[in-house]
Amino acid sequence: MGLENIRIVLVRPLYGGNVGSVCRAMMNMGITDLAVVRGKWELFEDDLRKMALGAISIYEERSEWDTLAEAVADCGLVAGTSARTGFYRDHARTIRDWTPTLLDEASRGKVGIAFGPEDKGLKTEELAVCTQIVQIPSTDEYSALNLAQAVMVCCYELYTGMDVFEPSEEKSPEAPSSMRERMFLAWREALLANGFMKEDKADHMMLGLRRILSRGTLTDADTRILIGMAKQTLWCAEELEKQRGADDEM
Amino acid sequence: MGLENIRIVLVRPLYGGNVGSVCRAMMNMGITDLAVVRGKWELFEDDLRKMALGAISIYEERSEWDTLAEAVADCGLVAGTSARTGFYRDHARTIRDWTPTLLDEASRGKVGIAFGPEDKGLKTEELAVCTQIVQIPSTDEYSALNLAQAVMVCCYELYTGMDVFEPSEEKSPEAPSSMRERMFLAWREALLANGFMKEDKADHMMLGLRRILSRGTLTDADTRILIGMAKQTLWCAEELEKQRGADDEM
Repeated sequence: MGLENIRIVLVRPLYGGNVGSVCRAMMNMGITDLAVVRGKWELFEDDLRKMALGAISIYEERSEWDTLAEAVADCGLVAGTSARTGFYRDHARTIRDWTPTLLDEASRGKVGIAFGPEDKGLKTEELAVCTQIVQIPSTDEYSALNLAQAVMVCCYELYTGMDVFEPSEEKSPEAPSSMRERMFLAWREALLANGFMKEDKADHMMLGLRRILSRGTLTDADTRILIGMAKQTLWCAEELEKQRGADDEM
Repeated sequence: MGLENIRIVLVRPLYGGNVGSVCRAMMNMGITDLAVVRGKWELFEDDLRKMALGAISIYEERSEWDTLAEAVADCGLVAGTSARTGFYRDHARTIRDWTPTLLDEASRGKVGIAFGPEDKGLKTEELAVCTQIVQIPSTDEYSALNLAQAVMVCCYELYTGMDVFEPSEEKSPEAPSSMRERMFLAWREALLANGFMKEDKADHMMLGLRRILSRGTLTDADTRILIGMAKQTLWCAEELEKQRGADDEM
């Protein structure tokens, strides 16, 4: 894997709720190594637990340090997150651009990603410890992300970069062409029988229906439903025909 | 643009803090149209304002609705976010996979993205209103994202998909080759003068230095610093030489 070699370093975080949200975001994305550089204040643990929920173990197993340099002493690459302008920030790239480099290094050794306090970000001397500067795309109108949101975007990019997630698979496979054709035939018969179209316009009308039903995928199960609807439509039209015949005889 | 046509729909959200975080995430990513499907409870507005900070205008300008169907009545595509298994969820794709489709449609008309309540997600009849099902990659160990984190990942993908963000530019351009060569020449002279290497090994040693200094980019400004260091190194070595000459004369 490699994600176990990624260390999230929170430098002097202010709010317990944010630290809890960081834990949850990390666990969502398969990253578990949390280091906290101590502040002069205590984190409010009630908020922290409320936001961490099932990811509180990440906080309980954190390491604590006095400085960023100590927190990343065993890391090869050290990425520092930074706002969009200022000293030492002119060789920044987005987290998406850095992700292949960070994951490549994480396949061999520890990689640190450092986030500054909510109000001020990392200090210049802390950015100097970093080998890469990471920026998160955001608008000029409001570029400051919440701390836990910034951690989420970085962890999400790293997890996505591992390419291990598979969306829920189709339970039913795409219908084969022969089944699709059987379905269109059933509708042709039904729509002729119920008077929606006449024989001379039928091919043209059926092209329209084909277009509509070919825009997305059509699974086996979808096609069965459509055939059932066509058959019932046909049955209903034939029943009506019979009924009329009976009425005429009366 | 197109992002102004993206509507984030929160269906019966429970916690004011999460709604506030949603507003901030939206504004960070240039998305401003918020619709809220009312719950039976009141959102706690203190928490909401504390987490929204400078993005509170998004909440103040929200629309409110009784049902998801009403909230997205004017939308072409409607994407519903959903956990990873269950009914109607077998044609899901990740938000990154859906982003081009959603942005393409948003260039022509309104697009809704719906998020269910924190505890239960969207109901089956609400997912039925959706034209696409969106999933966010996460680990099996802890797949449930916080509501605002889920909104952030979706908004981040859409904003990133617009390809409008530029990381801070290099203030100094990559140094031209001629300047780089002048720098290596200065170091060659300095390292011979201070005795770090002898003439017969100099070319080999300089290859090592070239390798080290060619791993990243070297800007104009970087190269000037390196030339300055080399010149000072040379000066110091020559001063020492002079000093020794003077001592010998004594």
